[in-house]
Amino acid sequence: MFNQRTRIKDLLAGDKANYETTVMGWVRSFRNNQFIALNDGSTNANIQVVVALGMLDEATQKRITTGACIKAVGEIIPSLGKGQKIELKATEILILGDCDTEKYPLQLKNRPSLEYLREIAHLRFRTNTFGAVFRVRHALAYAIHKFFNDKGFVYLHTPIITASDAEGAGEMFKVTAFPLDGTAPRNEDGSINFKEDFFGRSTNLTVSGQLEGELAAMAYSDIYTFGPTFRAENSNTTRHLAEFWMIEPEVAFNDLEDNMNLAEEFIKYVIRHAMEQNKEDLEFLAQRLEEEEKQKPQNERSEMGLMEKLDFVVNNDFERLTYTEAITILKESNHNKKKKFQYLIEGWGVDLQSEHERYLVEKHFKKPVILTDYPKEIKAFYMRQNDDGKTVAAMDILAPGIGEIVGGSQREERLDKLLERMEEMHIPADELWWYLDTRKFGACPHAGFGLGFERLVQFVTGMGNIRDVIPFPRYPKSAEF
Amino acid sequence: MFNQRTRIKDLLAGDKANYETTVMGWVRSFRNNQFIALNDGSTNANIQVVVALGMLDEATQKRITTGACIKAVGEIIPSLGKGQKIELKATEILILGDCDTEKYPLQLKNRPSLEYLREIAHLRFRTNTFGAVFRVRHALAYAIHKFFNDKGFVYLHTPIITASDAEGAGEMFKVTAFPLDGTAPRNEDGSINFKEDFFGRSTNLTVSGQLEGELAAMAYSDIYTFGPTFRAENSNTTRHLAEFWMIEPEVAFNDLEDNMNLAEEFIKYVIRHAMEQNKEDLEFLAQRLEEEEKQKPQNERSEMGLMEKLDFVVNNDFERLTYTEAITILKESNHNKKKKFQYLIEGWGVDLQSEHERYLVEKHFKKPVILTDYPKEIKAFYMRQNDDGKTVAAMDILAPGIGEIVGGSQREERLDKLLERMEEMHIPADELWWYLDTRKFGACPHAGFGLGFERLVQFVTGMGNIRDVIPFPRYPKSAEF
Repeated sequence: MFNQRTRIKDLLAGDKANYETTVMGWVRSFRNNQFIALNDGSTNANIQVVVALGMLDEATQKRITTGACIKAVGEIIPSLGKGQKIELKATEILILGDCDTEKYPLQLKNRPSLEYLREIAHLRFRTNTFGAVFRVRHALAYAIHKFFNDKGFVYLHTPIITASDAEGAGEMFKVTAFPLDGTAPRNEDGSINFKEDFFGRSTNLTVSGQLEGELAAMAYSDIYTFGPTFRAENSNTTRHLAEFWMIEPEVAFNDLEDNMNLAEEFIKYVIRHAMEQNKEDLEFLAQRLEEEEKQKPQNERSEMGLMEKLDFVVNNDFERLTYTEAITILKESNHNKKKKFQYLIEGWGVDLQSEHERYLVEKHFKKPVILTDYPKEIKAFYMRQNDDGKTVAAMDILAPGIGEIVGGSQREERLDKLLERMEEMHIPADELWWYLDTRKFGACPHAGFGLGFERLVQFVTGMGNIRDVIPFPRYPKSAEF
Repeated sequence: MFNQRTRIKDLLAGDKANYETTVMGWVRSFRNNQFIALNDGSTNANIQVVVALGMLDEATQKRITTGACIKAVGEIIPSLGKGQKIELKATEILILGDCDTEKYPLQLKNRPSLEYLREIAHLRFRTNTFGAVFRVRHALAYAIHKFFNDKGFVYLHTPIITASDAEGAGEMFKVTAFPLDGTAPRNEDGSINFKEDFFGRSTNLTVSGQLEGELAAMAYSDIYTFGPTFRAENSNTTRHLAEFWMIEPEVAFNDLEDNMNLAEEFIKYVIRHAMEQNKEDLEFLAQRLEEEEKQKPQNERSEMGLMEKLDFVVNNDFERLTYTEAITILKESNHNKKKKFQYLIEGWGVDLQSEHERYLVEKHFKKPVILTDYPKEIKAFYMRQNDDGKTVAAMDILAPGIGEIVGGSQREERLDKLLERMEEMHIPADELWWYLDTRKFGACPHAGFGLGFERLVQFVTGMGNIRDVIPFPRYPKSAEF
């Protein structure tokens, strides 16, 4: 057994002193050949390791550089220095791994840009920013599982490779064991003979686990998914990834209102969990954001700091209104009248653009908004048709700074209505025979939603680019690491 | 709000009576036009809903068929009948969804085979067997997150789409946005021009998140992954899937012994969690297995029942021995001498077959076994080389009835040794520049392992076929749903 260390987070949380312990981690700095700031990734805070003058030979001393990995044994004592309550008075220092300062890209002197850190995503975990971001990401992921587990939901792993391309949520990546060079087996008519491919049919990467989730909700009542989903869309934006994680709860017996209640409770729960468990990380990120905001022109700065924003979200009801009400607000807004929108709102029926969503959330209501009952033409085939014949029981949750963070609906459980809508939208019913079966055998009102995990992490960490909240982002022309 | 029901599991767990409540679920049976056995998937146990004679008109009564979805309002009263403490005396019954008995494949009379249920995987969730299996799967997944969270690990989402194919853990599926018909853009030499594909390079579905996990462990010290992994191997067995979920912890400062301790503690923890949280489901599955075993010839039956086996695993130390010791035991076994192995053990260096692993676990030690220090020739390039020059610090955990359930190792942290081994095994160093960087910048001893989640679920549920422990299995010629 080599690993008998105390985690630095646990050390600093304790208020004891005068005991022996061992720490291991990476050197952040080494001051005056005496004070090592050591970090082990459990927190952004470092433990100060004090090396008595003359304790180390010169060769060893020189190896204690930024990035080097060391083991330090010694006594925890109250610290006289500023910024820490305790420190480790070393009796033994062991160099576990050297770090060549000439080549190591993470030096304290230069402050690397987020863009540059994306190119060295294998090392960016070692910075304070990404240390905090990915610990918060963990806290949110854990809170998601805890929230649903405590409510008796079943976590369902829906398939990643799918033969279905019927949902139409976006462009799909193809998955194949065939060569791509044109030598794949052909049918007589020249088309590819997928019967000879691995799965005996053409397959893609999933865009959503919802349809499969509905199948399980018709047995367990309450299920959720949490897995990767994919879009082969050429979107080079700060809000899109080709590979991202999605949470999709699906609940039998829920109507649209139940669905909104669940989504709002859920979002507040996971944010509150992160605020409790990762207070220091969030305070660090709030500080980082504040500095970033200072670089912006006054009128582009956020009105609230990160902590204020999170506090506000967990402590206030989300505003709920219909699409139709939102259109009226937008149409009559000074923003629209003064033609400040790129896409002017002229009438009912149009899809909302990001600028409209942000106006509602950031300017008009100044809080998260749940829009409901969208025109059926701009929503998916499986959403439940309202009695007005024009709208569906959809809901989108819009968050400040992010826009759409949740999209959901009550599902169409009436077989005849569902088939009618599928035909209108050219969704092939025979491919979805299994989905339609649930409407034949004990159907019930049910509802669900999808939450893009990275958008949630962006919202909570205040990071502006979605590529900075997933460890190794996938986007057009980028699949490094 | 429509969903104001009480979950049947919570109802049955309570010992109160004489109060009003609402339940919703699916009819399992309707006896004597009076007694509805209603299930909502929260447990295999049904609530008995008692309908007073004459309360329902004949038309409604006829719609209460197996598989139909209903809402029942009434009073919880102590039950006089056998098999339940309480029942619901209905004052109101609402049919939410009919179920055509002529077409519904899940009738009580016939007992569908597991093979047939695989063909209707969208409905098998509604059977007692799969109800139990997937609730246990959930419990294990949750326990995994809880175990690591409570120890301060960071949950890391490693990429699914990867440009790396260097690990060699198995055949990979290709991912592309190109057409497969030979019209993909070409280079001058006739090869496919992947620069024009979505990611600007050739990409595959990941076989493991380990290499990326190591990157993060060099920052957070303790990380784990839990995500889907893929193999494009044409393995039509009861132990292989083309798409499966894997858990891969990676821990800085852990040596092989620390690694074994973590894996053993982890396995015991998650099994214990399932035994506590899903006692009734496991008892049901134990019963199912016992009946299945009765169909087998005496000499093929397991010596222990499912509950006994799980009890035994959580309460006993795993046997730890080296590969070399295992070879000696196998070579000198009567089994080997009497040529009962298909592959006879003749000397040191051969890879162990499933029959050898099962002999060690089921016949010789009769408990889980951790084998360590395998010949380097049969293990991956990243495993730490032992001083003997012949073996590596690998460990495999072998479980009764399953065989290998965990594979892990201490990693080679010494750059020169790693490069040497990569060259010997023709692993391209330039493609793994980022992996090698961690050996240049503050390397340290570290170790990790991978656990195939479905094998764990098989082990805990006693299901013989891995296709029956994942909701929608992917295997050669099969990607339905």
